[in-house]
Amino acid sequence: MTFENIRPASRVVWQLRTFVAERDWVQFHTPANLAKSISIESAELLECFQWNDEVTPDTLEPIKDELADVLTYCFLLADKLKLDPESLILGKLDKTKAKYPVEKARGKSAKYDRLDD
Amino acid sequence: MTFENIRPASRVVWQLRTFVAERDWVQFHTPANLAKSISIESAELLECFQWNDEVTPDTLEPIKDELADVLTYCFLLADKLKLDPESLILGKLDKTKAKYPVEKARGKSAKYDRLDD
Amino acid sequence: MTFENIRPASRVVWQLRTFVAERDWVQFHTPANLAKSISIESAELLECFQWNDEVTPDTLEPIKDELADVLTYCFLLADKLKLDPESLILGKLDKTKAKYPVEKARGKSAKYDRLDD
Amino acid sequence: MTFENIRPASRVVWQLRTFVAERDWVQFHTPANLAKSISIESAELLECFQWNDEVTPDTLEPIKDELADVLTYCFLLADKLKLDPESLILGKLDKTKAKYPVEKARGKSAKYDRLDD
Repeated sequence: MTFENIRPASRVVWQLRTFVAERDWVQFHTPANLAKSISIESAELLECFQWNDEVTPDTLEPIKDELADVLTYCFLLADKLKLDPESLILGKLDKTKAKYPVEKARGKSAKYDRLDD
Repeated sequence: MTFENIRPASRVVWQLRTFVAERDWVQFHTPANLAKSISIESAELLECFQWNDEVTPDTLEPIKDELADVLTYCFLLADKLKLDPESLILGKLDKTKAKYPVEKARGKSAKYDRLDD
Repeated sequence: MTFENIRPASRVVWQLRTFVAERDWVQFHTPANLAKSISIESAELLECFQWNDEVTPDTLEPIKDELADVLTYCFLLADKLKLDPESLILGKLDKTKAKYPVEKARGKSAKYDRLDD
Repeated sequence: MTFENIRPASRVVWQLRTFVAERDWVQFHTPANLAKSISIESAELLECFQWNDEVTPDTLEPIKDELADVLTYCFLLADKLKLDPESLILGKLDKTKAKYPVEKARGKSAKYDRLDD
């Protein structure tokens, strides 16, 4: 297998694995710890919007950094569970499409069980 | 441009955009609302580990669903900010490598500013 | 009404109000912003347990600080909604008792809708 | 000591302890699990503001319930660590006052290390 044949997602995963292995951090990356880490980084992302809903020149860089951190831990957890991030998204999208049919959900932010209210 | 030339990540983003546009949900997807959504879904993922750190046959499916939800909102926020998720991860990885040099960070879970403690 | 007649909870709320008013921060303390703040501080508390479930001499002080921050924003949100924190807890406790009857819930961490599984 | 001499906070804690003990749930309430629970319930509170920052007649009841859940787990964690919730708040308030002097912080939502910007 040549490097060219690896699709982009795998290259990212490969780099993350190398990064973690070189630091001997696999021992810390239990699924539960990765789930905690995803929540922690999500809140740091949210902090960029704590008092102001707008993206400003001051907050764009921190937003990128924190979003990257959430994504990184998500990719690490997916890899831990032998799952591909993009397949996960597409698989769930099919379920969500069924729960939110276009004709019922259009223009509404309600939860699927309240679409008829 | 043919469909074959779009790399996998873009296909996911394309599908997410179509899903959102068909439901007229763009109006709800402000960066701040997407950041809240990432936090909310992260906590639903964490809930799978609330009383038990192990992944069990009972929790694997919910874990996949919730991880998919976090990833979905992350991809939507990245797209909103015209950013590519994988480039974000790799860009941040470079910063993190600099903050956690292999020789100092090996086998330690401490934050970068406490690696010398 | 003399100060002695105010029960302890109210004294805390009184001090929080004064603190906020002196800094002219009422403008930032919308219910939505306080809810975000509660999530953000909760994640900082969770960070004390990110890689280690134990409370250690190193983490006790940060845990106290972060728990205090969560509580502070909870009290501020309660006050914003003209609610008393302790009455909220006791009111919800009655609902939870009904959802988790002693004989069914004893020794189980399952959600109320799965107690019969 | 008669019941009248117990100040309100203690009565709440007493009731929470009884509730937990009757269900034999002390075994689940490690500090780390309580910290996770605080994050999880905080996100459920945040969900009431996911697409709409306003408190509406529809969301007031869920907001009260979720805020009560966050407070409950905070009180349980405080009790676990032999701490009094209100003393925690007041102790932290003193630190925060020092970090945010009135003259520097008035009308600003910036973090204390950026008040001079």
